Amino acid sequence: MTGRLAILGLGPGSPDLQTPQVSRALEEATDLVGYETYLARIAERPGQRRHTSDNRAEFFRATYALELAAEGCRVAVVSSGDPGVFAMASAVFEALEAGPPAWRSLAIEVMPGVSAMFAAAAHAGAPLGHDFCAINLSDNLKPQAVIERRIRLAAEADFAIACYNPRSKARPDGLTAAFAIVREVCADDRPVLFARAVSTPEEHLRIVPLPEARAEMADMRTVVIIGSSQTRVIAGTRFLYTPRSAA
Amino acid sequence: MTGRLAILGLGPGSPDLQTPQVSRALEEATDLVGYETYLARIAERPGQRRHTSDNRAEFFRATYALELAAEGCRVAVVSSGDPGVFAMASAVFEALEAGPPAWRSLAIEVMPGVSAMFAAAAHAGAPLGHDFCAINLSDNLKPQAVIERRIRLAAEADFAIACYNPRSKARPDGLTAAFAIVREVCADDRPVLFARAVSTPEEHLRIVPLPEARAEMADMRTVVIIGSSQTRVIAGTRFLYTPRSAA
Repeated sequence: MTGRLAILGLGPGSPDLQTPQVSRALEEATDLVGYETYLARIAERPGQRRHTSDNRAEFFRATYALELAAEGCRVAVVSSGDPGVFAMASAVFEALEAGPPAWRSLAIEVMPGVSAMFAAAAHAGAPLGHDFCAINLSDNLKPQAVIERRIRLAAEADFAIACYNPRSKARPDGLTAAFAIVREVCADDRPVLFARAVSTPEEHLRIVPLPEARAEMADMRTVVIIGSSQTRVIAGTRFLYTPRSAA
Repeated sequence: MTGRLAILGLGPGSPDLQTPQVSRALEEATDLVGYETYLARIAERPGQRRHTSDNRAEFFRATYALELAAEGCRVAVVSSGDPGVFAMASAVFEALEAGPPAWRSLAIEVMPGVSAMFAAAAHAGAPLGHDFCAINLSDNLKPQAVIERRIRLAAEADFAIACYNPRSKARPDGLTAAFAIVREVCADDRPVLFARAVSTPEEHLRIVPLPEARAEMADMRTVVIIGSSQTRVIAGTRFLYTPRSAA
């Protein structure tokens, strides 16, 4: 087989945050596979085929990309942010594991990108400057009880907590539960960052103390970062940060 | 004041992983401030001044960068990886908070980069594809007891765990303690990734089952990723990954 599969991340939105490695892979690909909203960010090239799909069909999309590569295509599987963070890389490896053994000798490369969480943190200061964790609040693929237990332990560990997929129409209450758990463990007014559409023209950042944080402040384009006990806003600036030392 | 301060990340090593935003900021800077090993990665430009320092002098370096910006210089504070992840951004905000109030109106911008942990994950597959945390194992700025408690809670939460600064000459035993704690909580053979000097000519990746993981497999250029209970190696490939669903 002479096909190739690049699993790549476009970064959070701005082309200015896309790596040269990814730009080159997009130029060289014969086939782009991805959620239509992400493919819409890429300039059309003559002769390059596009295979778009709904954002929920990740496993199907991953399998189809492997099939194309096995046929000899140069395939780019496109994610936003970093492809290894709640994105397509794991879906491709799941499909690889479930597929024909011959796929295991395909030339597969994961190309990292600037993640949404680190871009959000950068534009607001440095809230992830000390120990932190990232939790996907979607209950599509794990029970709500697992999510809640993980948030409780993360709060006890005093991590700053980055919440991905904080809220959707089908799941309006998960973020409310997350805030309640952290408040129960901590009872302080640590800052919470709502970072929407970072590095796009629609970027909107908002910082509120935990007691004032509401799920309605987030949507599916928002990354929410709940500070640790040490995270603080610098008065007279737009920045929050977590110092390098523990309490 | 007309000075500017960019706190930026070069990415993990390869220029191919450095964002266009960062490349432009490096061209426009009058002054570069950073650890000498990182500044050595940047091409010299006529008239651009360089201020190197030892890697431990972070607060001093941050204060000096703010002073230069307050004098009207266009300063770039240089980190490897992402500047907000165990790097210079927090040090600059600490110095900003401790410094003269006038500094708070300086034009400061944090420019994200591809982090060492996400580059390491990408080159080895997708071990951080589900919930994960990042812990700095250095005890320079926090007690060893806090580190160990955090690792225990992270293992109980079943996060994949990225360990930064896993080992130094002054601190040979922290990683051994970390492995022992995870083994105590889990007692399984989940894979551990040792990723050294990712995206440089010296890149070296090694995956071993947790019971065989030894601190000697890491040095200060290594990121160690301890898998979650779900992380696994795909037989017949060089990849490990964590599926999108929980147990």
